[in-house]
Amino acid sequence: MSTQQVDSFPMSDRGLAYGDGLFETILVRNGSPFFWNEHMERLADGAARLGFTPPCRSELEAVLTRAGAGLCVLKLLFTRGSGGRGYAPPAQALPSWSYHFSPFEPDRARQHQGVTVRLCALKLSIQPQLAGIKHLSRLENVLARQEWSDSRIAEGVLSDLDGHVIEATAMNVAWFDGRQWLTPRLDRCGVGGTLRRALIERGFLTQAVLRTQNLPSVQAMIVFNSVQGCWPVTSLVSADGAPVTHWALSEPVKTMTRQANALLGYD
Amino acid sequence: MSTQQVDSFPMSDRGLAYGDGLFETILVRNGSPFFWNEHMERLADGAARLGFTPPCRSELEAVLTRAGAGLCVLKLLFTRGSGGRGYAPPAQALPSWSYHFSPFEPDRARQHQGVTVRLCALKLSIQPQLAGIKHLSRLENVLARQEWSDSRIAEGVLSDLDGHVIEATAMNVAWFDGRQWLTPRLDRCGVGGTLRRALIERGFLTQAVLRTQNLPSVQAMIVFNSVQGCWPVTSLVSADGAPVTHWALSEPVKTMTRQANALLGYD
Repeated sequence: MSTQQVDSFPMSDRGLAYGDGLFETILVRNGSPFFWNEHMERLADGAARLGFTPPCRSELEAVLTRAGAGLCVLKLLFTRGSGGRGYAPPAQALPSWSYHFSPFEPDRARQHQGVTVRLCALKLSIQPQLAGIKHLSRLENVLARQEWSDSRIAEGVLSDLDGHVIEATAMNVAWFDGRQWLTPRLDRCGVGGTLRRALIERGFLTQAVLRTQNLPSVQAMIVFNSVQGCWPVTSLVSADGAPVTHWALSEPVKTMTRQANALLGYD
Repeated sequence: MSTQQVDSFPMSDRGLAYGDGLFETILVRNGSPFFWNEHMERLADGAARLGFTPPCRSELEAVLTRAGAGLCVLKLLFTRGSGGRGYAPPAQALPSWSYHFSPFEPDRARQHQGVTVRLCALKLSIQPQLAGIKHLSRLENVLARQEWSDSRIAEGVLSDLDGHVIEATAMNVAWFDGRQWLTPRLDRCGVGGTLRRALIERGFLTQAVLRTQNLPSVQAMIVFNSVQGCWPVTSLVSADGAPVTHWALSEPVKTMTRQANALLGYD
C-alpha cells in the first residue's frame, strides 16, 4: 500500500499541520469528469514538487463510479500523511487522501450577463517553488476572500507584490488587448487552472504580463475556472468599492465566454 | 459553544483544506508550561489576523493538568472549523482545536558544543499579512527542511526574496555584531518565536536587518526556539555543503546561550 484513503485526518496529518498536500476540484456530469487528464497532471506535478506519491490514477477513477446523475463537483484532497520530525517529512510517508461529492449548479446569470469584480488589497507573495500547483497552504486566498462580503461582487482580482495581475481568489483571469486574449504567467505565484490550460492549449489564450495599473484600459476581461465556467467582467471596482471601469458585453468577450463554457458543457 | 475540541478533522475542515488555522508548540515541565503568556498572546494575535475566535484560555489551561511528570511538548492546533463557500469563511464558524503531548529531551550536545547550519536555497516569500504568526500554511518550511537529510546539519537558515536573513526552518536566529545581539525583524515573513520575544523583552536581543551576504562576517550566531532552547552555531555551510564560516565558542555566544537556555530551565 503506497497511499491510504481515509474518512478523517488526525492532528498529526501533515496536510493539517503544515498545509503539506494538494487538492483538485473537478466538475462531473453523469459520472464523467471534465478535464480529468489536466487535473491528474496538475496533481502529479504538485506531488512531484512536494516530493510525495499520489494515489494511482485508477484508484481515483474508481471514485467516479460513485458520482450520481446530473452535475456535481468532486473534491479530491491529498496529504503527505502523518509523521516526520517537525517540518522534515518522514523517510517513508504513507500519503492519505479523501474525496467528497457536492451537487452543483452553475450560475447562468453570471455566465451570460457578466459580473462585478474588485481589486483585492492583499498582494500575493512570490514563491516560484509553489507557483502553479494547487497545494493546501492557501491562507492568502482565504484572507483575500475575506476582504468583501457583498454578494454582488463575484470575485476579487489578486496582484502580486510587484504589481502584476495574477488571478482571482478562486479563478483565473484573462483580458483582451484588442487583438488577442491574454492570461498572466503563473511561474512566480498563482494556481494554474485546468480550464486555463485547456484554453491555452487550444490557442484561445496566450500567456503575458500585465501591470495592475493597466488593467482598467484593457478592452475586455473574464474570470473563469473549470467548475464555474467563464464569467465576463462588466464592472471593476477598487478595494474600497469605488468604480474603476465598466466593460460592455462586446463580441470578443461573448465569443470567448461561449468557447470556454462550451468546454464544460455549458451553453 | 464558541469552539469545539476534536479528536480528528474531516476533509471539510478549513485547517486541512486551506491551512486556515494556527498552532503552538509549548515546553512543559511537570505540568508547568514555559512562556504560556507569550504562546497565548501569539495565538490571540494570529486568530485576530485570520479573523476567528480561539478557545478561551482557561479551556487551554485545563489541558495542562493532563501533562505527566517530567519534560514534554504540548502541541495545540486550532482551525477555523468547517464550512463556507470555497475560500470565503462561513459567517458563523465553529473553530476546532486539538492537542497532543510528546515526551521531550533537549539535545544537550547541541546546546553546549554548538551546531552546523546550512544556508537554504529556498527564499521565503514576503507576505506582511501573515508575517510573525504561527499559521498552518507552512509549505515553505517543509520544502526548505527537505533540502537536506544529513543529520549532522542541525538547521537551515532562511533568507527572504530580497536577500535578508529571516529565521531557520523551525527556529529563530540571532547574531553578535561585536557590540550587541541582533535578530531579524519579522514584519514581512517568518514566525515570531516566544523565546525570541522573551529575549527581546529582557533586553538581550534587538531587532535589525542583515543581508545574507553579510552573515559570514558576524562575530557569532545562534539558533533558538522555546522547545529546543538555544544552540550556538559553530559552522555555516552553503546549500551545497561547502564550508562558509567557522565560529569559535566565544564568551559572548556562551553567555547568550546560557541566558537563553536558563529561561527554559536548561542548565
